[in-house]
Amino acid sequence: MTETRFDVVGIGNAIVDVLAHAEDELLDQLGLIKGAMTLIDDKTADAVYETMGPAIECSGGSAANTIAGLASLGGTAAFVGKVRDDQLGKVFAHDIRALGVSFETQPAADGKSTARCLILVTPDAERTMQTYLGSCVELGPADINEETIAAAKITYLEGYLWDPAAAKEAFTKAAGLAHDAGRLVSLSLSDSFCVDRHRAEFLDLVESHVDVLFANEDEIKSLYQVDEFDDALQRVRGHCQVAALTRGAKGSVVIAGDEVHIVDADPVDHVADTTGAGDAYAAGFLYGFTRGDGLARCAHIGNIAAGEVIGHMGARPDTPLKDLLADKLG
Amino acid sequence: MTETRFDVVGIGNAIVDVLAHAEDELLDQLGLIKGAMTLIDDKTADAVYETMGPAIECSGGSAANTIAGLASLGGTAAFVGKVRDDQLGKVFAHDIRALGVSFETQPAADGKSTARCLILVTPDAERTMQTYLGSCVELGPADINEETIAAAKITYLEGYLWDPAAAKEAFTKAAGLAHDAGRLVSLSLSDSFCVDRHRAEFLDLVESHVDVLFANEDEIKSLYQVDEFDDALQRVRGHCQVAALTRGAKGSVVIAGDEVHIVDADPVDHVADTTGAGDAYAAGFLYGFTRGDGLARCAHIGNIAAGEVIGHMGARPDTPLKDLLADKLG
Repeated sequence: MTETRFDVVGIGNAIVDVLAHAEDELLDQLGLIKGAMTLIDDKTADAVYETMGPAIECSGGSAANTIAGLASLGGTAAFVGKVRDDQLGKVFAHDIRALGVSFETQPAADGKSTARCLILVTPDAERTMQTYLGSCVELGPADINEETIAAAKITYLEGYLWDPAAAKEAFTKAAGLAHDAGRLVSLSLSDSFCVDRHRAEFLDLVESHVDVLFANEDEIKSLYQVDEFDDALQRVRGHCQVAALTRGAKGSVVIAGDEVHIVDADPVDHVADTTGAGDAYAAGFLYGFTRGDGLARCAHIGNIAAGEVIGHMGARPDTPLKDLLADKLG
Repeated sequence: MTETRFDVVGIGNAIVDVLAHAEDELLDQLGLIKGAMTLIDDKTADAVYETMGPAIECSGGSAANTIAGLASLGGTAAFVGKVRDDQLGKVFAHDIRALGVSFETQPAADGKSTARCLILVTPDAERTMQTYLGSCVELGPADINEETIAAAKITYLEGYLWDPAAAKEAFTKAAGLAHDAGRLVSLSLSDSFCVDRHRAEFLDLVESHVDVLFANEDEIKSLYQVDEFDDALQRVRGHCQVAALTRGAKGSVVIAGDEVHIVDADPVDHVADTTGAGDAYAAGFLYGFTRGDGLARCAHIGNIAAGEVIGHMGARPDTPLKDLLADKLG
């Protein structure tokens, strides 16, 4: 096997987040389910934006956030995702490259604008998301470079890629190339409603194609259509090499064959905005994993990264995670 | 005199801020003076952006921040400034309108893009700014609506407007209309280097056209070319109805004829980013002033507003200032 250049290559929707504080009443008025991600078209995006208060803009996208977190920890990474050549596309490309991430996907020269995720952060710090996929629908198999996939220890994919049709083909191609090159494939289930939309295919993926699975409690319960976390835990066991399951303030559970770890959350002074918590956990976990750390330490690094991200508005680290990790774990 | 619809109409450069953490070494490398605002062209803006770390985008602009702060306190306001009809222009317009501010300036349909201010926030929380004025250079006298100016108790102008040539004419026209309608004119000196660029004209403005002046310590010393704050204080006394002078952690000094108030800063747990501190102070001061509050209370409200804004990244309030004021002053 040739040497790797990247710890992880992430493939996902390339999105700029638009975050605003909102009262619970606005979610009711818009008919939204708290904590979920809903896909919307451009007209709805404009209408929802009208209802939102003053906002801030930050680069987002689930897998892109994970890649940003990994780079912030000191890992080497590449990202594949489709922006347009517009102002928000330049923002996305700048932010990920500024972390030293290789981002070579050609921006779309015409068609829909760069994707936006309108995020309402309620007083309980929960985020509710509405995504206009924009140019993400242009991502396809041609954007997957065999050399890049083969050069990464892990190819990391977000479940949300299953929503735009051509991206799903890109996903499948990348997973195949990774395994052909003797590399690992990792998947985040993304969102319980996304799991609902694609359950049969996700079950097949987890069974046959995924080595390292990330899911939160709602997602893993949705995947197996069970009501209890423990039931989901028994079901996922043995279906992929490693499953890292997050439970919010309860911390995370890692299961890998006979090995099980239950790792408490990192204490956080003040939770401001949970956007990106799961993405940051995956970043920390994969940082440890690609260095050969034990699974408990991987989970601990994941918890530390998630703890930083939920302390402020926005899904990506506000301070270098590398420094934070040195402070906390030495 | 007819009734007013607005407490304040603000006229200024319509800018989207791009904020990133930076080490002091980057300021040295770029040859920047810490704490200052430098004007740059689009090529330099692209080159500086390349050197910056991951950033967040928020609406900015000095007078626009003041108007946003005033609206967040519960005041009524209008804003005049020129964006382009691009993605960042839509962000600017959304954020100010979302606060209930009347913003009717026609966006430029072609020409330069919406203005961007690249802000480097060093570990001491000081911000150093580089501004690409973009479509702000298109603001001119035709954008000043007589009815809007006459409908506001105070017309508030930023010194930065003196940089783009046509905006200066808009500024002069607005000041004249305000006085013709029996209203007050307020000016912020903006930046000590801006004062350097336009000192003679600013001295004339303060002498003959400004009723309420805002300046920080560096700016007022630059205006009168003196080394000591007290010398500047003696010079400004009597040259305008009210001068509100900010001194960072030392709080603020208000001087109005024989009346003088020295009001301590509001205690702040953690200073994250000083961007917008002066703008927020002016917002709080003008909120009190347009309600007929005593000058000491105006300064106190200014300090509270500034205290909120320096606690987080970005120049505009993260929480409604109205609620904060109710908590602090009842």
